[in-house]
Amino acid sequence: MLQSEVGVAKEELDTPCLLLDLARLDRNIERMAALARSAGVRLRPHAKTHKLVEVARRQLGAGSDGLTVAKLGEAEVFAENGIDNLFIAYPLWGEPKWRRLCRLAEQGEVRIAVDSEEVCRGISAMSSQRGLTIPVRIELDTGFGRCGVQDAGQAGRLAEVITRLPGVRLVGLMSFAGQTYDSPEGVRVAASADAARLLEVAEALRERDFEIAEISVGSTPSAAHLGKLAGVTEFRPGTYVFSDREQAALGWGTLDDCALRVLATVVSRPTPTRAVIDAGTKTLTSDRAGHADGWGAVIGHPSWKLATLNEEHGVIELRGGDDAPIGTTLEIVPNHACGALNMHDWVAVVSDDVVQDWWRVAGRGLVS
Amino acid sequence: MLQSEVGVAKEELDTPCLLLDLARLDRNIERMAALARSAGVRLRPHAKTHKLVEVARRQLGAGSDGLTVAKLGEAEVFAENGIDNLFIAYPLWGEPKWRRLCRLAEQGEVRIAVDSEEVCRGISAMSSQRGLTIPVRIELDTGFGRCGVQDAGQAGRLAEVITRLPGVRLVGLMSFAGQTYDSPEGVRVAASADAARLLEVAEALRERDFEIAEISVGSTPSAAHLGKLAGVTEFRPGTYVFSDREQAALGWGTLDDCALRVLATVVSRPTPTRAVIDAGTKTLTSDRAGHADGWGAVIGHPSWKLATLNEEHGVIELRGGDDAPIGTTLEIVPNHACGALNMHDWVAVVSDDVVQDWWRVAGRGLVS
Repeated sequence: MLQSEVGVAKEELDTPCLLLDLARLDRNIERMAALARSAGVRLRPHAKTHKLVEVARRQLGAGSDGLTVAKLGEAEVFAENGIDNLFIAYPLWGEPKWRRLCRLAEQGEVRIAVDSEEVCRGISAMSSQRGLTIPVRIELDTGFGRCGVQDAGQAGRLAEVITRLPGVRLVGLMSFAGQTYDSPEGVRVAASADAARLLEVAEALRERDFEIAEISVGSTPSAAHLGKLAGVTEFRPGTYVFSDREQAALGWGTLDDCALRVLATVVSRPTPTRAVIDAGTKTLTSDRAGHADGWGAVIGHPSWKLATLNEEHGVIELRGGDDAPIGTTLEIVPNHACGALNMHDWVAVVSDDVVQDWWRVAGRGLVS
Repeated sequence: MLQSEVGVAKEELDTPCLLLDLARLDRNIERMAALARSAGVRLRPHAKTHKLVEVARRQLGAGSDGLTVAKLGEAEVFAENGIDNLFIAYPLWGEPKWRRLCRLAEQGEVRIAVDSEEVCRGISAMSSQRGLTIPVRIELDTGFGRCGVQDAGQAGRLAEVITRLPGVRLVGLMSFAGQTYDSPEGVRVAASADAARLLEVAEALRERDFEIAEISVGSTPSAAHLGKLAGVTEFRPGTYVFSDREQAALGWGTLDDCALRVLATVVSRPTPTRAVIDAGTKTLTSDRAGHADGWGAVIGHPSWKLATLNEEHGVIELRGGDDAPIGTTLEIVPNHACGALNMHDWVAVVSDDVVQDWWRVAGRGLVS
């Protein structure tokens, strides 16, 4: 088994393989923790990026109170490993899911996001029966066009419903401002508008005597502006922990700061300018993540373009004179780390270019 | 565990979930087998599409001699399950991989594709040491621009190398004509040009007394033209076994013939025309597969558009008046079945809309 290879140089690993550099990981974790500390905002990192118990422990060790997750299955994996302050930032529907939510709430502190009366009523029926009260945050759509109530009127009506129902308790508001990803220049404007919209609705609810203690926002690109988002109480960035080509382009560190890379090998050299590597969409994903220019960055060769991905092939256009004979190993920074991580069951943990450990992507492949 | 739910109606399953309809699967398998029989061409389906032992058995039961795979890990899974006539259509590099190849060749009949002297020499050194002779096919690039020797001259030089090396034996030529996917109109032309190019190079090699017995081509779109590809001895389609939105658009059956679907639930209804489902890129993949118009087809609602995918969210634009309250379950035909399958560890096997079994995606998540 590959996973037994510890103490070898990373270049010795069979490919394609996911590498996680510990020093870079810890720098990213500490950097975000420092930003949150200095802004006086609680950090609740989104763990869908890494799905790794070991990374979650490091985030908590650096001062996060708890984690955000996208799925019940992720929440369960973390709870089984003693990480039980969780926010499920996803509308949960159906009795099997509500039952699992209640089981989690019996063991730890679990918040959820809601944007509909239907979901609130379903959860209430089950949680109240078990004598539980589940803290809920209303999700507001601040312009991304995904989930969320649309305005203060809808938020108020949902707040009324929640307040009247047993087994649920309104504690705050949340948003996900995916529009912060649109451009490096737009991040600050989008992040400010998102927070302002959330605070405006919070104010309207508070005027009606709803208790809105928690204002939760955040993504990696908006972290740079965290200090200016007055009124926000919690920040939920995800990708920062690894970083990737998209985040580097949006201003979160440099390509060199990216902790998650794919180790690949040149397996074919059909022409003098074409090198084929053993990493395709089933290794890197087909998440372009807004990068028109290639599917990943080849470390050490900024002029090369990872021009095409098929399922198990990546085609690199060699430019600038460097060569890459068959057998050359290359490190690729993926465009989108969350997607790339999700293709793998194991990640090789590397320190000073030597494999120290293998971590299982425990939260991957869970149905719901 | 979800995987214990057998005998329930498919709509009862927790979502998101992958459904495989047995009747449609078997129809697709039989249809391709009949095309190959009538063309007098051997069928060696590409199993990277399904990675499922149970599907492989059905393909062999319908008359295929063996399978094609993209990775050693896939080959090993099938070999462990008694399916040992395999073609690894991928350039294998490195001693760990050559060692595994030799182990497979000791147990069954394993062919490989090569396009370089380097790979041939590496394999030869290890296979000859063990007294093995591995049949190899030279890969020719017929216009797709991925792997493969570029012309008859290069093919001839590689054929000379192979013939002189111990432990390897030249048995034929292969190509992958990805350009057949470019448009429905272009499939016939691209498929014919691919075969013609391969036969031209085969002829040049035969004139030099190389034995080129096997001419292997194929993809699902080109199957309709299989009868006209004189000289071809083997056909390697993959996606036909499930079919998907892309294949239906290219002419392999209709959307209704697609055997692999994602069962999803409407979890949020933020606006009258927006429905959010619990299937995003981590369920359906971000393989657009050439479809500018949406990320999948919602069965029964041809006017709806699956407009956006994030990791765990799909946003449907409702059009045409139909409604989709929270809790509605929907079946989505993915744009690219191979990618969607690869996101899942299990698939629910359905017959007459009732779950009959759960199959483990045994070939998924293997490093190499």
